[in-house]
Amino acid sequence: MLPEPIKKFADVFSKLPSIGPRQATRLAFYISNLGKGKIKEISQAIAGLADLTPCSRCFRTHLGAHSTSSGQAGKLCSICSDPMRTKGLVAIVEKETDILSLEKTKKINGWYLLLGELHKTGELEPEQKLRLASLKSFLKKEKAEEIILAINPTVYGDLNASFLKKELEEYAKKITRLGRGIPTGGEIEFADEETLGSALDKRS
Amino acid sequence: MLPEPIKKFADVFSKLPSIGPRQATRLAFYISNLGKGKIKEISQAIAGLADLTPCSRCFRTHLGAHSTSSGQAGKLCSICSDPMRTKGLVAIVEKETDILSLEKTKKINGWYLLLGELHKTGELEPEQKLRLASLKSFLKKEKAEEIILAINPTVYGDLNASFLKKELEEYAKKITRLGRGIPTGGEIEFADEETLGSALDKRS
Repeated sequence: MLPEPIKKFADVFSKLPSIGPRQATRLAFYISNLGKGKIKEISQAIAGLADLTPCSRCFRTHLGAHSTSSGQAGKLCSICSDPMRTKGLVAIVEKETDILSLEKTKKINGWYLLLGELHKTGELEPEQKLRLASLKSFLKKEKAEEIILAINPTVYGDLNASFLKKELEEYAKKITRLGRGIPTGGEIEFADEETLGSALDKRS
Repeated sequence: MLPEPIKKFADVFSKLPSIGPRQATRLAFYISNLGKGKIKEISQAIAGLADLTPCSRCFRTHLGAHSTSSGQAGKLCSICSDPMRTKGLVAIVEKETDILSLEKTKKINGWYLLLGELHKTGELEPEQKLRLASLKSFLKKEKAEEIILAINPTVYGDLNASFLKKELEEYAKKITRLGRGIPTGGEIEFADEETLGSALDKRS
């Protein structure tokens, strides 16, 4: 019943995270009505993603041929190739968007390790083990001043953080996690017990 | 801060319905990590939508070169070119997906007019006026037995339906709307007043 191109689109798109089969079908019809020019633009926006490669140090996605500050083409992303940033501070994150959020605070004058989303069991995937090994070999030459485990403050996050802390103990002088408390703009009345407890522990 | 291809993708996709800027950015990172082969597949799934054109009678999206039952290439979709379907029954719908839902019931042995989403004000867009004019000119030769206004039973739907009814009065022997009542599997206890009222009015 569905025209073949609609079906094909819906198949492909409903496999992407947070897009269901119904939304994919509606999107397909919507895009098909935008006209050939717009369809080409959308298709090219996707094709353009193929130009991206993971940074060889932090593994975040970047334009592969990014120039380093010295003007030479390098495999490092703009953060890792920035000579103004210290190598002694590393924040370990799960998602690219977490890096974006942290960068907006302008408080991390170091670099990142993108680990990918962590399992609830605390087990690492083979790719995650490789990334951690890469971090260790980088820090072998010189211990980091601090590794920030910038992982969500959930039960599973805590579990994963405790595993990572053990793994990385000998590679940094200090291993920290993000502070916990009442979010700015939040109200004491609506804070859950755990959060309020943390806020009290960390009062200053 | 965002790599250019990610930004481009997020710009284009956050303009699509039901995709927000955050979801678009997450999707961009996700897709960029799928590898060149998969990225090409997704990009082509979109490019394929350009092969679709609106049916010249009902305006629903279909593969333009669809063969009619007589084996000739025609501009009509599979429903409009089906000789087993009566021309005397037309269902007016807002969305392609509404046609899909109605077709699944196998109770419409006629054809459709895809009008596009209606304004809350009851006003028609220029394109919608053209489609209505096209329907009228088709029915001028022979009045339809029935036009079903298959429009959502909301306050705005009611308003639009009453306008359409006036517009189409002389083109059909009968103009109907979908029945209202408690949905199958629903419970009286949870039905709102309006729905329960309609169910009582329409008891049989």
